[in-house]
Amino acid sequence: MSEPSTPFLPKSRVAAVQAAPVFLDPAATVDKACSLIAEAAGRGARLVAFPEVFVAGYPYWNWLMTPIEGAEWHQRLYRSAVLAEGPEVAALCAAARDHDCTVVIGVNERDPFSVGTIYNTNLVIGADGSLLGRHRKLVPTWAEKLSWAGGDGSSIRVYETPVGRLGTLACGENTNTLARFALLSQGELVHVANYIALPVAPASYDMAEAIRIRAIAHSFEGKIFTITACSAVSEEIIAAMSEGRPGNRELLSRPNSAFSGIIDPHGQVMGEALIDDEGIVYADIDLGECVRPKLMHDIIGGYNRFDIFNLTVDRTPRASAYFIDEVQSPGSSEEAP
Amino acid sequence: MSEPSTPFLPKSRVAAVQAAPVFLDPAATVDKACSLIAEAAGRGARLVAFPEVFVAGYPYWNWLMTPIEGAEWHQRLYRSAVLAEGPEVAALCAAARDHDCTVVIGVNERDPFSVGTIYNTNLVIGADGSLLGRHRKLVPTWAEKLSWAGGDGSSIRVYETPVGRLGTLACGENTNTLARFALLSQGELVHVANYIALPVAPASYDMAEAIRIRAIAHSFEGKIFTITACSAVSEEIIAAMSEGRPGNRELLSRPNSAFSGIIDPHGQVMGEALIDDEGIVYADIDLGECVRPKLMHDIIGGYNRFDIFNLTVDRTPRASAYFIDEVQSPGSSEEAP
Amino acid sequence: MSEPSTPFLPKSRVAAVQAAPVFLDPAATVDKACSLIAEAAGRGARLVAFPEVFVAGYPYWNWLMTPIEGAEWHQRLYRSAVLAEGPEVAALCAAARDHDCTVVIGVNERDPFSVGTIYNTNLVIGADGSLLGRHRKLVPTWAEKLSWAGGDGSSIRVYETPVGRLGTLACGENTNTLARFALLSQGELVHVANYIALPVAPASYDMAEAIRIRAIAHSFEGKIFTITACSAVSEEIIAAMSEGRPGNRELLSRPNSAFSGIIDPHGQVMGEALIDDEGIVYADIDLGECVRPKLMHDIIGGYNRFDIFNLTVDRTPRASAYFIDEVQSPGSSEEAP
Amino acid sequence: MSEPSTPFLPKSRVAAVQAAPVFLDPAATVDKACSLIAEAAGRGARLVAFPEVFVAGYPYWNWLMTPIEGAEWHQRLYRSAVLAEGPEVAALCAAARDHDCTVVIGVNERDPFSVGTIYNTNLVIGADGSLLGRHRKLVPTWAEKLSWAGGDGSSIRVYETPVGRLGTLACGENTNTLARFALLSQGELVHVANYIALPVAPASYDMAEAIRIRAIAHSFEGKIFTITACSAVSEEIIAAMSEGRPGNRELLSRPNSAFSGIIDPHGQVMGEALIDDEGIVYADIDLGECVRPKLMHDIIGGYNRFDIFNLTVDRTPRASAYFIDEVQSPGSSEEAP
Amino acid sequence: MSEPSTPFLPKSRVAAVQAAPVFLDPAATVDKACSLIAEAAGRGARLVAFPEVFVAGYPYWNWLMTPIEGAEWHQRLYRSAVLAEGPEVAALCAAARDHDCTVVIGVNERDPFSVGTIYNTNLVIGADGSLLGRHRKLVPTWAEKLSWAGGDGSSIRVYETPVGRLGTLACGENTNTLARFALLSQGELVHVANYIALPVAPASYDMAEAIRIRAIAHSFEGKIFTITACSAVSEEIIAAMSEGRPGNRELLSRPNSAFSGIIDPHGQVMGEALIDDEGIVYADIDLGECVRPKLMHDIIGGYNRFDIFNLTVDRTPRASAYFIDEVQSPGSSEEAP
Amino acid sequence: MSEPSTPFLPKSRVAAVQAAPVFLDPAATVDKACSLIAEAAGRGARLVAFPEVFVAGYPYWNWLMTPIEGAEWHQRLYRSAVLAEGPEVAALCAAARDHDCTVVIGVNERDPFSVGTIYNTNLVIGADGSLLGRHRKLVPTWAEKLSWAGGDGSSIRVYETPVGRLGTLACGENTNTLARFALLSQGELVHVANYIALPVAPASYDMAEAIRIRAIAHSFEGKIFTITACSAVSEEIIAAMSEGRPGNRELLSRPNSAFSGIIDPHGQVMGEALIDDEGIVYADIDLGECVRPKLMHDIIGGYNRFDIFNLTVDRTPRASAYFIDEVQSPGSSEEAP
Repeated sequence: MSEPSTPFLPKSRVAAVQAAPVFLDPAATVDKACSLIAEAAGRGARLVAFPEVFVAGYPYWNWLMTPIEGAEWHQRLYRSAVLAEGPEVAALCAAARDHDCTVVIGVNERDPFSVGTIYNTNLVIGADGSLLGRHRKLVPTWAEKLSWAGGDGSSIRVYETPVGRLGTLACGENTNTLARFALLSQGELVHVANYIALPVAPASYDMAEAIRIRAIAHSFEGKIFTITACSAVSEEIIAAMSEGRPGNRELLSRPNSAFSGIIDPHGQVMGEALIDDEGIVYADIDLGECVRPKLMHDIIGGYNRFDIFNLTVDRTPRASAYFIDEVQSPGSSEEAP
Repeated sequence: MSEPSTPFLPKSRVAAVQAAPVFLDPAATVDKACSLIAEAAGRGARLVAFPEVFVAGYPYWNWLMTPIEGAEWHQRLYRSAVLAEGPEVAALCAAARDHDCTVVIGVNERDPFSVGTIYNTNLVIGADGSLLGRHRKLVPTWAEKLSWAGGDGSSIRVYETPVGRLGTLACGENTNTLARFALLSQGELVHVANYIALPVAPASYDMAEAIRIRAIAHSFEGKIFTITACSAVSEEIIAAMSEGRPGNRELLSRPNSAFSGIIDPHGQVMGEALIDDEGIVYADIDLGECVRPKLMHDIIGGYNRFDIFNLTVDRTPRASAYFIDEVQSPGSSEEAP
Repeated sequence: MSEPSTPFLPKSRVAAVQAAPVFLDPAATVDKACSLIAEAAGRGARLVAFPEVFVAGYPYWNWLMTPIEGAEWHQRLYRSAVLAEGPEVAALCAAARDHDCTVVIGVNERDPFSVGTIYNTNLVIGADGSLLGRHRKLVPTWAEKLSWAGGDGSSIRVYETPVGRLGTLACGENTNTLARFALLSQGELVHVANYIALPVAPASYDMAEAIRIRAIAHSFEGKIFTITACSAVSEEIIAAMSEGRPGNRELLSRPNSAFSGIIDPHGQVMGEALIDDEGIVYADIDLGECVRPKLMHDIIGGYNRFDIFNLTVDRTPRASAYFIDEVQSPGSSEEAP
Repeated sequence: MSEPSTPFLPKSRVAAVQAAPVFLDPAATVDKACSLIAEAAGRGARLVAFPEVFVAGYPYWNWLMTPIEGAEWHQRLYRSAVLAEGPEVAALCAAARDHDCTVVIGVNERDPFSVGTIYNTNLVIGADGSLLGRHRKLVPTWAEKLSWAGGDGSSIRVYETPVGRLGTLACGENTNTLARFALLSQGELVHVANYIALPVAPASYDMAEAIRIRAIAHSFEGKIFTITACSAVSEEIIAAMSEGRPGNRELLSRPNSAFSGIIDPHGQVMGEALIDDEGIVYADIDLGECVRPKLMHDIIGGYNRFDIFNLTVDRTPRASAYFIDEVQSPGSSEEAP
Repeated sequence: MSEPSTPFLPKSRVAAVQAAPVFLDPAATVDKACSLIAEAAGRGARLVAFPEVFVAGYPYWNWLMTPIEGAEWHQRLYRSAVLAEGPEVAALCAAARDHDCTVVIGVNERDPFSVGTIYNTNLVIGADGSLLGRHRKLVPTWAEKLSWAGGDGSSIRVYETPVGRLGTLACGENTNTLARFALLSQGELVHVANYIALPVAPASYDMAEAIRIRAIAHSFEGKIFTITACSAVSEEIIAAMSEGRPGNRELLSRPNSAFSGIIDPHGQVMGEALIDDEGIVYADIDLGECVRPKLMHDIIGGYNRFDIFNLTVDRTPRASAYFIDEVQSPGSSEEAP
Repeated sequence: MSEPSTPFLPKSRVAAVQAAPVFLDPAATVDKACSLIAEAAGRGARLVAFPEVFVAGYPYWNWLMTPIEGAEWHQRLYRSAVLAEGPEVAALCAAARDHDCTVVIGVNERDPFSVGTIYNTNLVIGADGSLLGRHRKLVPTWAEKLSWAGGDGSSIRVYETPVGRLGTLACGENTNTLARFALLSQGELVHVANYIALPVAPASYDMAEAIRIRAIAHSFEGKIFTITACSAVSEEIIAAMSEGRPGNRELLSRPNSAFSGIIDPHGQVMGEALIDDEGIVYADIDLGECVRPKLMHDIIGGYNRFDIFNLTVDRTPRASAYFIDEVQSPGSSEEAP
């Protein structure tokens, strides 16, 4: 037999990018992302994880303005949103292929049918440049509901990649016990949890700690590696949000608002995590380390009780209408518009 | 990247024609239509919407005579009906191409197989002169059932045009909640609802108001532009229908029977609508205005619940028989005649 | 035979209440509601429709403050929310029974399991004092998402009442083409669309007109009666929302923000509607009037095409988990070896 | 109405006991437990949480000996196991009643039918002295499988108590995503996670940290309070396990093997946790604090998607056989011959 | 606490009687049984097990004559059958009480209602002289069907006795996997399997071995003690059956037709078993020995899978008719005659 | 008519292999297995039964070391485990097909989703080389729980093969009354019970005898043929387990630890069984012999009482989650309004 391209439990270097986008400028942000892919791949990374909606920025106004005040910014967000089939995503795919690197990156995605609808979408791009998956965040968090519609269940999937079976959830979704389990149940071994820096949350909410808790919990429960990649807040963003609202400058400068790092299957941070500052965090992960902790607890195997707990995940794609355009042979399925 | 021919959310001038046909004379009516296209295009319109069955007239006798009495008129209607592939439609297409103008126009269409069958058909003609679509009214209204057969679902479609994604429904179809939604779900942004003046409806039925209600409802629900184009009642028609039935003259002269105008995405009439009189109404529409109202309600996106409401639209073409003329490879689909 | 209590197509007097709650005080607001029921019933009303979340107030802060600023108010809203099985609802049921009156009323409903979860719920109370239905608004509108969770499809129902088959949707749901159709499809003849006064919407949004458009559209499409009941903005509310934010006073005083009235099956307002002011609007409705307009268009019958349009409504109740607590009957579904 | 005995979102003092049992001596251990209840109640605690299998000790031999070597100890464990209906549990119930205190405590429970079968059982004892619940650990962890059989799903329940809705899971069960969610879904607000000190786990397993991770994860995800109570390793236990195996002394003395403390709904440890040493940790918890964090993420409410994720929990009691002893009335669910 | 009369896992001496009855003479056979009880108790036995239908003999004619030929013998069998409430059973109960000895003994039992019906019944008599249980053999074996009717499921029970939880099955019933499991599931620790000597079975059937296989299997599977007590064939019986049929003498004298003995929880025969000859076998059993083998396999506990295997046992008493003699309150159960 | 390939009650030669694997080397062990298939088939065997987890070895360390000490060996076991779809199983299937021989063989099976999970799996391979069945041992025995997860009920099946209806249970499962009965109830006539040599069990456990008891019990109760195939302990295994633990050499050399042989429907061993040594045992079995003993006792037929005993077997496949991936057919099960 020929040697398989990916060993059973591979070892790889992975990278988590903590960076700010060029605010609401998708073309410039994609350029920045491609440079960061090149840099990380140059240092040996076979997986590069980017923040949530890195292309091209997070709607901070939802937290800093009333909905009416923010509506003008919404127009700008909508016009900066990209299509999954558009040129910006094509450029990211090319960079992944050129650097033989799996990439997970968040984008503001424009719905191809409903004018005005935007999704918070995580793209999983294969090392061959193909678009492996597109996960639309299921439920936006609190004030984010003012900007994004929720996705359907069709993207609750893990993907075979050279660094191992990979799944991703965006930000608050990592709080969702059932969403996390649905990925673990598919044999997820590498989880990308990407976030945005959230200095504007309530004072009781320590965002860096909130990111860390969820990451170590997911790694510990599933006995897998978790990679968190979080955005940074740039002076450009602070300036945009503080224009005419000087109090926002202090809010947006609050420390401990971003955390990027890699967690091992015991729930421990590998090396140093990056707090708030821009940069790239690297770690060498060995999936063989996922085997032994399962002797203690294997929640998708012998340590669970599927005679008692029965989870069904509806991954049916949802559309506003389904169109049947051809004479059906019995049993075939409808086409979406 | 090269400049795309149509911007993402274009601005255009659109026109709604309120006019009477040359009664049951398709050639003369097409001439009149081509003149009106030229006039509107000359004033900058990139879309011209004509009334329902403008070519070449509405069978008022169904409302004014008994079916037996009307049968003679039906013979005349049938002989004046056109084929979609015939010279009258070709002439309209040429006019559209010559004036770089999208055209929506109603015709009495002759079925190519069943002698005697007529459809109430809306044609969508591209600015390049191609026939983009042919929508046969699904269900004729009340007395209209005496003249027309209903179409199939194959034309429940929107079309990419230089003025935006365009869909159309004829007259009473704009009452049909599901038909309207099926167009919205495809990303319709410009809706053409064409009508005939109906002075002969029951006294409780204010036709102009009935047209307006449906137009503002569709625009408000979908956050889109609606263009209504309604026919006028000419002295020629009154004379024809009153011959030997003098009481019909008064009926056919009843005011508030026609309404043509353009509605914005908030459900407001743009400028002045045209009531009863012949003329052309113009408006400058900016599809960018469709984005903001979706923040309130986006019924084909985040404001709906497709986990609860699941609409399937069967667009399968229907024919009286399907003929298989070749040895079928497994899985291929049958051919319609 | 004796006279049946409810004739086939009854005539009744119905009432729409336009009033402000005692802000965030459920006990006092229920007292006010009971007085209004008594008053309306005293004038012969057999159905009294109250505004959305009348018990006990609308979270205006979502539109007037940032989410962080509004969080303190959210705590107050939560503590003022009622249980469907609680004493406040029991008092409303008693009033309905005492006055032999069907009542539709909106409440902030506390989830019995998830601490912190509130629904925008419409209660339908029978004239015998029983709780006929509980409809949790499916999708809160824009800024409202900051306060309420959405309901499931289980309440997409109409109810037999002495005034006829009655259905209800809250506020923006009346924009939802599919939700409206799902009620019509069950034979709805009396629709209660209740709202809150929304002076704080964007300037382009004329709330009174937006209520009216939806009401006449629903009545016209379905050939039914629609009753709109909208809340009023009290000085108490203005004062609460303007404390430390004087600019809010003007916003909350904007005219044309509330509309209550009754619409007939032709889409016409019966008598005078009430704009902004508190009061009760009455109308005498005769369900026999719903028959004739269906000759023109019966969208749940002969004027639709269910061979083409197939709407499925999933009314499955949804819960965070389902518990099987009893030994299952053996012998029910085994497979033979 | 009269004042309810328990307010809607009560405030209470709770206590977590970190202590060693009198090894394999249930009567003496129950005496110790009753003293600790008296002490904690004397300082105002309304809830006292005890370690896993506190009555009367943990089978450390499974980790320190081969199964054959440990079989002799198993005999002693079996004979020290108690019946839920036995005098030891009755004494604990009396102490709870006497001190008006809810008690959660782990016991080695003897199966009433199968000689030789022992369960790792958590008892929930009401402040009135009643036995509210009996949860048999679903799956023993790794080497523990040598001692205990697993329970069925019938005890996946939360209980109404004066300190709020309370649920409990033992030790490694707190790793089980689905078990945790099944409690949260019932409105759990106070979670007792009890453990045993595990100095003998593999060197890579930091038990105190492993307890902490799970506790903060559960509190953070569910926005609830978690109380962890862990046993301590006494000199008595060390001596028993080291007899003839001197190397075990060092293993059993490894630090960071026990953690008891209380976690708030933000995932933060309240005050100081107790590491390794015996003692009682107290905290004053206010269930009102559970409301606000749900604005961010309410995974059993608006932040989840039950149209996608459908969890069924089979709580059917399981027995080795079911006996039908009475003549069935027709229509009952057992199968007649 | 006072000393309980029976320790948790008692040690006792038990006895198995291998003997022949006084053929078809119940009074004389009961006298013999009482003597044997006295003898065994005198040697310390706390349990005495007698053969199947010891009172007063087995219908060998079913195997040796045609049914027509045997009918005369059936008359004699019927007249020798006893009532459970009759003097013969009372005498046995008195002997048990007098010697403080639990007794299991087989009888031919006369149905109290149906003249002619006989059951093969095992009586369980308490050491206090009470009749604990009456088990009618469920299915007679092959030729036995010519004499006995089968019992219902009401006697599938174990009984608390001073020697431990005791159950019994007659002869071929010990082949019935489900019947055996139904006793084990109730915590049976001492099983009495009584038989008759069967020299007349087919040549391939080694009765002594067939008794042994079933006994060691039941003990091994359940980790319990099994006591087999088998009848002997007396010269009296041989003479009766050979009268006019001399060939039967050889058949009835075939060796290896009876086996009495005691089996331990490992499936090993304790001491020597008794083959064919009359006598009493004794063993000292320690129920504490049942605990350790369960570490390997506990088929009514942790080594089974009751999520997969669900056994229901219908113990409803069956009668030829049920009589309702009182006005029933709803939900009460019928009374058997 | 032509001769059918399999007669109704066929006669066949069957073989039981008693052998040691090449320890933890699946490729070399599969080679050995293929040679043994060739050898047995060469001598006329149409069925070859291999030991439990023959591919590639039994985790003896669980009995000889503490769990912590054994964890390193667990890593090796995991990496030597095979996928049911992998090349090792394909090679076994090819050998079965090449030699026209039904094969039952045990393997350590790797879970395709959960890294770290291993099952003790029996494969049933058809004489045509297809994989007929895959039975994952339901409950590992005592110390085995440290290595394997349990399977679900989906494999409680018998298979049609040229040697008759065949079922299989692994090792201790043959103690499970209900599992055995569930196979018998499907008409099992040939039962393969495979085992591993267990010299390391407690001294009171005579493994060869324990294998024999269960085999003769199953054959006797069911009136069927049982084939037991047990592994042998090689010097290679002894050396591996004794490295640094010299005492283990004696333990692993204990006699009477393995038993392979064939049992007839009367519960008698056919010919000589093989104790401890490597080799192949053959027997010529005639399924026609299963008929007559059923005259005495047919526990799945006339000798049982299914009005009393009702066994349900849940063969539902269990998974950690179920995914619904296709649009559900509309129109299937909606409720009418």
